[in-house]
Amino acid sequence: MSGSWGKKVHYSIFGESHGKGIGITIDGLPPGLEIDLAEVTRELERRAPGKSPLSTARNEKDAFTIWSGFLNGKTTGSPLCAIIENSNQRSADYESLAWKFRPGHADYTGSIKYKNHNDLRGGGHFSGRLTAPLVFAGAIAKQLLKRQDILIGSHIQRIASIAEPQFDAVRIDKNILQQLELQSFPVLDPLLGEKMQESILVAKSAGDSVGGIIEAAVIHLPAGLGDPFFDSLESTLAHLLFSIPAVKGVEFGSGFALAQMQGSDANDAMYNQNNSIITSTNHNGGILGGISNGMPLIFRVAIKPTPSIALEQHTVNAKGENVSLQVGGRHDPCIVPRAIPVVEAIAAMAIWDVL
Amino acid sequence: MSGSWGKKVHYSIFGESHGKGIGITIDGLPPGLEIDLAEVTRELERRAPGKSPLSTARNEKDAFTIWSGFLNGKTTGSPLCAIIENSNQRSADYESLAWKFRPGHADYTGSIKYKNHNDLRGGGHFSGRLTAPLVFAGAIAKQLLKRQDILIGSHIQRIASIAEPQFDAVRIDKNILQQLELQSFPVLDPLLGEKMQESILVAKSAGDSVGGIIEAAVIHLPAGLGDPFFDSLESTLAHLLFSIPAVKGVEFGSGFALAQMQGSDANDAMYNQNNSIITSTNHNGGILGGISNGMPLIFRVAIKPTPSIALEQHTVNAKGENVSLQVGGRHDPCIVPRAIPVVEAIAAMAIWDVL
Amino acid sequence: MSGSWGKKVHYSIFGESHGKGIGITIDGLPPGLEIDLAEVTRELERRAPGKSPLSTARNEKDAFTIWSGFLNGKTTGSPLCAIIENSNQRSADYESLAWKFRPGHADYTGSIKYKNHNDLRGGGHFSGRLTAPLVFAGAIAKQLLKRQDILIGSHIQRIASIAEPQFDAVRIDKNILQQLELQSFPVLDPLLGEKMQESILVAKSAGDSVGGIIEAAVIHLPAGLGDPFFDSLESTLAHLLFSIPAVKGVEFGSGFALAQMQGSDANDAMYNQNNSIITSTNHNGGILGGISNGMPLIFRVAIKPTPSIALEQHTVNAKGENVSLQVGGRHDPCIVPRAIPVVEAIAAMAIWDVL
Amino acid sequence: MSGSWGKKVHYSIFGESHGKGIGITIDGLPPGLEIDLAEVTRELERRAPGKSPLSTARNEKDAFTIWSGFLNGKTTGSPLCAIIENSNQRSADYESLAWKFRPGHADYTGSIKYKNHNDLRGGGHFSGRLTAPLVFAGAIAKQLLKRQDILIGSHIQRIASIAEPQFDAVRIDKNILQQLELQSFPVLDPLLGEKMQESILVAKSAGDSVGGIIEAAVIHLPAGLGDPFFDSLESTLAHLLFSIPAVKGVEFGSGFALAQMQGSDANDAMYNQNNSIITSTNHNGGILGGISNGMPLIFRVAIKPTPSIALEQHTVNAKGENVSLQVGGRHDPCIVPRAIPVVEAIAAMAIWDVL
Repeated sequence: MSGSWGKKVHYSIFGESHGKGIGITIDGLPPGLEIDLAEVTRELERRAPGKSPLSTARNEKDAFTIWSGFLNGKTTGSPLCAIIENSNQRSADYESLAWKFRPGHADYTGSIKYKNHNDLRGGGHFSGRLTAPLVFAGAIAKQLLKRQDILIGSHIQRIASIAEPQFDAVRIDKNILQQLELQSFPVLDPLLGEKMQESILVAKSAGDSVGGIIEAAVIHLPAGLGDPFFDSLESTLAHLLFSIPAVKGVEFGSGFALAQMQGSDANDAMYNQNNSIITSTNHNGGILGGISNGMPLIFRVAIKPTPSIALEQHTVNAKGENVSLQVGGRHDPCIVPRAIPVVEAIAAMAIWDVL
Repeated sequence: MSGSWGKKVHYSIFGESHGKGIGITIDGLPPGLEIDLAEVTRELERRAPGKSPLSTARNEKDAFTIWSGFLNGKTTGSPLCAIIENSNQRSADYESLAWKFRPGHADYTGSIKYKNHNDLRGGGHFSGRLTAPLVFAGAIAKQLLKRQDILIGSHIQRIASIAEPQFDAVRIDKNILQQLELQSFPVLDPLLGEKMQESILVAKSAGDSVGGIIEAAVIHLPAGLGDPFFDSLESTLAHLLFSIPAVKGVEFGSGFALAQMQGSDANDAMYNQNNSIITSTNHNGGILGGISNGMPLIFRVAIKPTPSIALEQHTVNAKGENVSLQVGGRHDPCIVPRAIPVVEAIAAMAIWDVL
Repeated sequence: MSGSWGKKVHYSIFGESHGKGIGITIDGLPPGLEIDLAEVTRELERRAPGKSPLSTARNEKDAFTIWSGFLNGKTTGSPLCAIIENSNQRSADYESLAWKFRPGHADYTGSIKYKNHNDLRGGGHFSGRLTAPLVFAGAIAKQLLKRQDILIGSHIQRIASIAEPQFDAVRIDKNILQQLELQSFPVLDPLLGEKMQESILVAKSAGDSVGGIIEAAVIHLPAGLGDPFFDSLESTLAHLLFSIPAVKGVEFGSGFALAQMQGSDANDAMYNQNNSIITSTNHNGGILGGISNGMPLIFRVAIKPTPSIALEQHTVNAKGENVSLQVGGRHDPCIVPRAIPVVEAIAAMAIWDVL
Repeated sequence: MSGSWGKKVHYSIFGESHGKGIGITIDGLPPGLEIDLAEVTRELERRAPGKSPLSTARNEKDAFTIWSGFLNGKTTGSPLCAIIENSNQRSADYESLAWKFRPGHADYTGSIKYKNHNDLRGGGHFSGRLTAPLVFAGAIAKQLLKRQDILIGSHIQRIASIAEPQFDAVRIDKNILQQLELQSFPVLDPLLGEKMQESILVAKSAGDSVGGIIEAAVIHLPAGLGDPFFDSLESTLAHLLFSIPAVKGVEFGSGFALAQMQGSDANDAMYNQNNSIITSTNHNGGILGGISNGMPLIFRVAIKPTPSIALEQHTVNAKGENVSLQVGGRHDPCIVPRAIPVVEAIAAMAIWDVL
């Protein structure tokens, strides 16, 4: 069972990049929920390509149609199915790739798993395009969380060698998250943000690509969420985050930096401040023992460089012959900016499921 | 559902640190499997405390009894339940803690989630002791994998500021893994290993604790394992790894370092070498598109410093008063060495489940 | 999670009777399976209304479109989504019903569960129309089973007071099942079949409806299928069968008649006949201890009379007022004949899942 | 995954009849619930054998020990594990059976499924003894339901050819259920009850066994429970009921008798009576469209005659030879009376899960 996830709400995705369409069925939404579809569209537009020189020139219109579970602006309580039809199918760009496994992609592993029956056009079911239905679903979860004042936001903390400061894990607030949401390339430090964008364009002009780190925060989360032993809050979030094909690392709070700390620093001393239990630092990222503690939830994901690059690469074709490959077509030199709404969507889905 | 995990095999744990016992039910093992119980005991001994000045002086005998599902040295096909009775219960050490939330622990979050009804003695269900049943289960999975020549091993790649080199992700082999298994403090470089141990003892004598990084490798894994979209191999492994209370970061292959690389480096060029499809580098850690590619599977987990320290800390008691706390009792100044068999057990459980 | 089912294969349905469409996502089909779509269409036609005076005059074209997971006549290994668009929407017939709860229907219980937000038009998600996607999915399962020579068939064993003999549970064979499949009103005894049809027409002309019993058989099933304790073969089949809204009883083998038997009769004596282990009788319907024993699997389902009748009934409207109701529109005087392919589809799905 | 069940609460059973013990882990109970253990013991005693000439002379003490999840009379919120040690193990009685498949039992099907590795002593995991942990779990669920005034009760509606009237499905009330609970052989009509007991003793003296029907009622159930499409209330109950090895039929409301009714009778006319929505009849057994409607939930289960009989039977041994068999040991001539608390336990578990 690969295409479904969730306990409280059950998500089931389907679709291939160059098939008839891609979609998601969301089962378990309470009846009578109003959904702001314009807001959902805005989230999808944040993910859509073709908006700047930083992303692929492909112009995909991610217009969705709701097929069920939604009537007169409200959920009906039965499964809500939304579909995005595939309109812009330039299969030709990929035709030759069908037989040369693109390094860094799922071409080879997919051909093994699906015994060469998988749809190779445009990456098929492995296409980043499959994250669009997730953004649809996450946009709904995000709205529902916002009504409880639980807010999710994120910034690009690193592109290649350019890094900006991490969130202040204690003082991160609504204003900062709202400001980030307005930016097409969300950063805390605009100057460093410009340098990051330059490094993307440099890689692009070299026919290469770069990766980066997205840091996300969830604020106003109540204490007590998460289901240890096996379904710790970290487990639930990491499970979903690692389903994004480009994610290769996930850390909470100070994450890997905790490995270099002393317990006396890492422990986050607790205080009662005006009848709120808070911690003076937040190295644990708002999660202790797999359960939220009421402090901001902080996590970072490592995004690898886009595997589709123009530079010549060595690889193997479907016949097993050693060959060289130049990936044609139009690709993102860096997927990080477009991954922002996906990461936020997934965080919203995960949190809605344990709330 | 917090205490159960798994699809092919279904694991269900129970127990509290100072209750009658802790255990695990393993449902779905094929009938007729021989299990080497002496080997299982060896794995549990790797996790057991009291073996060196590096770990707590508590002497827990993790002797297990199999209650069902096992007859004449073989699985019967019905659920296998194993229980470790709790013999060494020094509740007094923790009695006072019941009312002072230990920073960095689940004391506060557990009291919120379980409305103050959870068993606080020794950490209750949150105790690291609950990892013993996982080691039991993982030891079985490890044996079954070994019969297919799939081997799992790991080393302590970092303690506090002392780091040793990572695995050679392409050339890591059986000899290296077997050599690591023989070491009580498994490292690739003995000199750096001694420095790591020194840094643990320094922290101990200061009444403090340190964290570290465990790097693990799984070799001879066939290509084609993992179930994207939602159950990528990374998702499955990370889900389980993040259920270990001390784990705050998980990365695959080059992980967070990929964020600083170019696509042309990160992509792992593919070759046909003597009719095997291999990659010349292994920055993706043996996983592409969420599916194994036949190269060594490499991952690292960040372990935070043990939260139980002798140094005085500021915290809040159950009445909500600001208080200072000195954690008594005997604690591990660093949990990393004892976490090694747990990480390996969990990797074995995850891989056995998707095989 | 109401809309999804299955372990090996995961089914997720969506849609409402008068919404944009109804569909099903089938996740977990092995890659490379050829599917005979003409055969799938034939199964859907067996369920479709409008074919005879015995069923509703509504003319629904259950033409499906496959949106994903299927390429060049074969499964790709990614989720297969099929959708039937709703073309014939005569909402007006039901408009007034929205406010008068139809006795015997889910109108009242649905309004309680979904807090009056469910789509009432045509029964919404509760419509019998939702069984069409199940027939689609079951038709695929049926094909896959047939390739292993596992055959499913059924007959109408009772309509109202007219009953025909049950299957010979030991000697039921391929010829009988194939003959039944050719009949639009499948019975073992044509004369009794005619009487059954007459009793349907009598009820129809009286503005009333009748129920009946469907008896199904699955032959050539290998011994050893089913997963006790909780997922006995009976549990799996009954779970799915009771999701059909009209089913109110399920029995296996001699079923309720076993309550009147002696153990010496009920036990089905075992014999080795030409190296096959068989039983001389089959009162247990091919299942012992929740596991198939290699004998024909026999079960019966009780189908209640169609609740939509023209006769005046007493009921309550949405305001809670006592009112009288005459259900207009065109309805089946008996749903049993159209339920035949649904019961067979569900049996195929259940058996494919445990095979 | 055979040994686990449940969504809200997750149950996981283990154990074999003649192994070290049998048990159940209950995960998901809210923290802080008081449990009346004396009441749990009373339920287990209802199931225990050796109390009357109607049941086996085996004297099993089903004394349970709680290993986790329960402290100071209340649940802790972590998994509650209860174990019943096996004390009375007369393996010798069964020794020879190991090689002769008992007709009507799971001996043959179990040997196929578990490849002859299953524990054959006393039926192993297939033993009716495994229902004791279910009664333990159900006794807890029953208590929790009772606190919400939801009551479960049942009577023996038939033994062999002796049947008593069914419940009045509209007027069944607390008094009737409480009276039934006090009876060791619960019936509505004492005279018919005596005849039923006589028929059991007649079968016993003939070395034979008889079956019967248990009818159960759940009253004060709120409307709106059940999760169609796939998890209708009927599906959830039937799934669990059919995991009891002796159950071969399940029907709701008028069940199979509905097949003989007209829609105008079967539809249960609705009325508003003092601001309650009720039905004048209850042929649908309190469930419409898979969801409870607030009327009494009524169901019946068919229990087959105990397969272990003293009379000589024809069967096959493990070598595949045709042999005759006389089952020794002490067996229940009729399992129906002891199945009563199991059926009630399972109903309680199912209802607690969907509440």
